[in-house]
Amino acid sequence: MNTALQSPLPESREARKRIRSGEWTGPTSGMAGRYVQGNVAIFPSELAADFLRFCHLNPKPCPLLGVSEPGDPALPSLGEDIDIRTDLPRYRVFENGSCVDTPHDIRRWWRDDLVSFVLGCSHSFEEALLESGLRLKHVERGAAVPMYRTSIPTRSAGPFQGPTVVSMRPYAPADAIRAVQITSRFPAVHGAPLHIGFPEAIGIGDLNRPDWGEPVAVEAGELPVFWACGVTPQAVIEAAKLPFCITHFPGSMLITDLLNAQISVL
Amino acid sequence: MNTALQSPLPESREARKRIRSGEWTGPTSGMAGRYVQGNVAIFPSELAADFLRFCHLNPKPCPLLGVSEPGDPALPSLGEDIDIRTDLPRYRVFENGSCVDTPHDIRRWWRDDLVSFVLGCSHSFEEALLESGLRLKHVERGAAVPMYRTSIPTRSAGPFQGPTVVSMRPYAPADAIRAVQITSRFPAVHGAPLHIGFPEAIGIGDLNRPDWGEPVAVEAGELPVFWACGVTPQAVIEAAKLPFCITHFPGSMLITDLLNAQISVL
Repeated sequence: MNTALQSPLPESREARKRIRSGEWTGPTSGMAGRYVQGNVAIFPSELAADFLRFCHLNPKPCPLLGVSEPGDPALPSLGEDIDIRTDLPRYRVFENGSCVDTPHDIRRWWRDDLVSFVLGCSHSFEEALLESGLRLKHVERGAAVPMYRTSIPTRSAGPFQGPTVVSMRPYAPADAIRAVQITSRFPAVHGAPLHIGFPEAIGIGDLNRPDWGEPVAVEAGELPVFWACGVTPQAVIEAAKLPFCITHFPGSMLITDLLNAQISVL
Repeated sequence: MNTALQSPLPESREARKRIRSGEWTGPTSGMAGRYVQGNVAIFPSELAADFLRFCHLNPKPCPLLGVSEPGDPALPSLGEDIDIRTDLPRYRVFENGSCVDTPHDIRRWWRDDLVSFVLGCSHSFEEALLESGLRLKHVERGAAVPMYRTSIPTRSAGPFQGPTVVSMRPYAPADAIRAVQITSRFPAVHGAPLHIGFPEAIGIGDLNRPDWGEPVAVEAGELPVFWACGVTPQAVIEAAKLPFCITHFPGSMLITDLLNAQISVL
């Protein structure tokens, strides 16, 4: 404990402190870049068991990094001081399937039966792709990665059901092979691609019209490479029209104390 | 030593014994299937340094499993009792670039300055692909894998130079991704694919006309996946028109005591 007190705070804790204090209310992309960021979903405990099962059944789109105790806003396995009620820049609160609030903290919405889920997102493997010298064209142009609803169903659990959503990054073949190797090391953040090469084979009609994000051209000699995407659970949660739930606001993630390098399995 | 004497001989040693005695003179494919088989090339010592450098410069087509001392027919790191002069079912002997003999042993050709090289071959990763439930269409039809000269040059060393030769196996995208993962674990036997998807991008004009082996159709929804191939050094050696060298006869490999599972790096 003493050595921890004497060391400077890790970047991740500094970032959460700025967010918690209300100093930072924007997207978390690029903040504390070496640390794992997570998508967040918060449910009353009667729905939590179904959602936990949904994650278990669909580990590629829903890689579970952490789950809280009911009513407890802490997630000690992801960061000693995390308070899920205040540590995201922005939230979405849903009642009966409609977004009724997009607050910067959810203390006034908190209930004693709420269970928090934190899911891995592609930021972590994108850092690894960049470090290996692979391009990320959407990042180069400051755009969101293109994402598509596919014909690949998820396995349903209780009210949670819907199609798998994928993100797409185009690569020349040798880089696509390298990208499979690199992302295979990160099962906690979607892992290896689901598909390479034939958008129509997974129900994508037109790569130029993503369902979320912005189109990125697949140039001659490139293959479109598709990864399971964290928008899958978000879309499933919205479609379930639950009586009550809270999620992160798009782009406003939880910054954890896990290093990206730490969740690599190989 | 005593326990070794008490155990039955490993399958690989049994197979070499049958070959050494002249009982078996055919191809080694399917013999002692759990054990690593290697391509063999034998040079006078003045060429051996160049070939060693060639292997070092081109590890994907020329993954080096073992090298002998000059004049010594043993390769103890690959099998305690190996005698490279007798342990292959058949050889090819070249003089001034022409094949002058295809004997079942090379004792009469042996010289005190010969150095033996053993290179990994795709049999090992093919076993791993099959065990993971992936198909090998050429094996299903009892044919040799289709192989192609590419426009990817090797890096030359002394007289050794020429194009990289690849083998091709067609896979549906999810299986292609899995095949990248599996073969990445086997750098000692060509490792991950060199290319996926666009034959013309690596100088292959017509998949239906392989330079070696037999064509295998790439069906709709499949991607052609290309691996560096052990025919690369064989073609390079033949093209070099060396004063003297000996290689294995196609399909008649050295069976080593290394288990395929043992050379997997992950």
